[in-house]
Amino acid sequence: MPQTTTDHARRRDTLRAALARHEPALDALLVTDLDNVRYLAGFTGSNGALLIAADPADDAIATDGRYLTQVAEQSGDLRAVIERDVAKALLAEARGTVGFEATAVSYADHARLAPEAHLVPTTRLVETLREVKDDGEIELLRRACAISDQALAALVDEGAIRPGATETQVARRLENLMYELGAEAVAFETIVAAGPNSAIPHHRPTDAVLAAGDFVKIDFGARFRGYHADETRTFVLGEPAAWQREIYDVVRAAQTAGREALVPGADVRAIDGAARSVIEAAGYGEQFLHGLGHGVGVQIHEAPTLGKLGSGTLSDGAVVTVEPGVYLPGRGGVRIEDTLVVRADGPELLTRTTKDLIAL
Amino acid sequence: MPQTTTDHARRRDTLRAALARHEPALDALLVTDLDNVRYLAGFTGSNGALLIAADPADDAIATDGRYLTQVAEQSGDLRAVIERDVAKALLAEARGTVGFEATAVSYADHARLAPEAHLVPTTRLVETLREVKDDGEIELLRRACAISDQALAALVDEGAIRPGATETQVARRLENLMYELGAEAVAFETIVAAGPNSAIPHHRPTDAVLAAGDFVKIDFGARFRGYHADETRTFVLGEPAAWQREIYDVVRAAQTAGREALVPGADVRAIDGAARSVIEAAGYGEQFLHGLGHGVGVQIHEAPTLGKLGSGTLSDGAVVTVEPGVYLPGRGGVRIEDTLVVRADGPELLTRTTKDLIAL
Repeated sequence: MPQTTTDHARRRDTLRAALARHEPALDALLVTDLDNVRYLAGFTGSNGALLIAADPADDAIATDGRYLTQVAEQSGDLRAVIERDVAKALLAEARGTVGFEATAVSYADHARLAPEAHLVPTTRLVETLREVKDDGEIELLRRACAISDQALAALVDEGAIRPGATETQVARRLENLMYELGAEAVAFETIVAAGPNSAIPHHRPTDAVLAAGDFVKIDFGARFRGYHADETRTFVLGEPAAWQREIYDVVRAAQTAGREALVPGADVRAIDGAARSVIEAAGYGEQFLHGLGHGVGVQIHEAPTLGKLGSGTLSDGAVVTVEPGVYLPGRGGVRIEDTLVVRADGPELLTRTTKDLIAL
Repeated sequence: MPQTTTDHARRRDTLRAALARHEPALDALLVTDLDNVRYLAGFTGSNGALLIAADPADDAIATDGRYLTQVAEQSGDLRAVIERDVAKALLAEARGTVGFEATAVSYADHARLAPEAHLVPTTRLVETLREVKDDGEIELLRRACAISDQALAALVDEGAIRPGATETQVARRLENLMYELGAEAVAFETIVAAGPNSAIPHHRPTDAVLAAGDFVKIDFGARFRGYHADETRTFVLGEPAAWQREIYDVVRAAQTAGREALVPGADVRAIDGAARSVIEAAGYGEQFLHGLGHGVGVQIHEAPTLGKLGSGTLSDGAVVTVEPGVYLPGRGGVRIEDTLVVRADGPELLTRTTKDLIAL
């Protein structure tokens, strides 16, 4: 179910309705964040901007001559303006009060553009729309997660996670498997963290050699047509020690509690709390120092934030990660992470690799 | 020759001298561009900022708690402030007139930070320093280019560039060879463009199958400790046709002319012109639609720009690419690109793979 120009047109219409409700009311919005441009128009070039106007007939996309063919293929339903300075070109034809994305325009660009139009800063107009995924987006996320699952299964089956291999070798192999299975890119730099390194939440793979008795924590994902998968599994090399089984079971129970708390309308801090209370009750609250999860879509990290720093409630149709962890410095750590779709009748699990503790 | 805290301290002192000469004079500079933070302090975390003050004793680096250990290891000679909102934390202790990087601070962040200090926009203060590389930087660029050369040689030796392989397979294999040879990352997404695709300057690898008679254009590079290599070679599968040999020879002659024009003090547009005139004289001026080259260092594209859109003169110690091309739509194209150090006694070639036309 690839995304169509109809999907993009519908998103632009939803945004258009939000412009009329904005305070102050906006006659148009200049979109310069490239993820938002892709979300609203399907265009993937490295230089592009959109103007969303009150009348859809006034909508336009701008890019430079390098992308003449590409913009016609990807965004053929929009009028294209071919100019290197895309923001300036679109503002030259905008009328009335024009919103711009205050976090996506630099101070320098604002100073340059302000004489062109009556500009009003806006925040998170498109990002808020992006929180709820439509069917086309969910299908792409499903594919990205399926590729990730398949790659991890192949990695395990071929025995690549073994004493003597280095973290870097395992990471490279997993990334190659994702490419072979259809990923267009890796969603982020793969984390493979063995032994004491597994206690570092965001460890970068090194030449450290995997050894018997190690936890091996793997946080990875494929990107498929612009959409990201995010998944973590933790393995053990050989028979797990008692402390390893203990923290694994705690994290697994917390992860289950977090998934079960994914109900439309739930407070995002309460979801974090549902998982965190399991870890705190087991005495490991001090060893879980990050948030429970985050939205995922055209960016690997997007709204909502499931954690103490988040705010608001969970939307039906949001796609989020649930990823509690317990990290014992100098010894090792466990994180278990899924990507899921929030639905009224219970979340849909997109990353389906088993969460049983696998001893390799 | 890894970079030391002495290198970073020397760069901060050079910048400090520039602050006093700035109009208006600056008592301090807030550095939020992460490439500039790394250049001035060695810090590689994803959240960081620097304050460069009139008195070196007042310099400080800020990051959040995730990077407590890392900032001590990488920037132990600087006072560290541990706060999530790094810019705000540094401004809270700055005095007088404080410059900020106008292209690296969003409109929204500026609005948030302006009450904290007397802020003045600045442009390209650190980027200008970065144009001239010191010995430590050149050694890292030399290593990045050597890895790239070795990987390409291995790719050719193992026969990976052959009829029947896909562009994607060749690109993946080359990237893996760079990793095996010590790259920490690829400098950018590898371009492998075969047959008619070689006429597209910035083609992304596809499942297109290499065939006898094709040009195969490969634009690639390794990243080593933050520094980027950039290299292009064009091969031919089988005996080159007359038209292939003709445009290859034109591009090669233009590339030689461009390299020979790399003299400290030369106008950057004249360097472009030296190569371009060779291509124009051969009647292919309309088929060379991009600039001749660009600086390379902690970013894959940085100052100076060698092209019609550039300005200024070439500095002794700049590191630049020279990459003319001729592209015949529907048939094929050739680009030849080196990375070189500009020196008074002639440029030092960092990418040393032969530029003879190789028939595979």
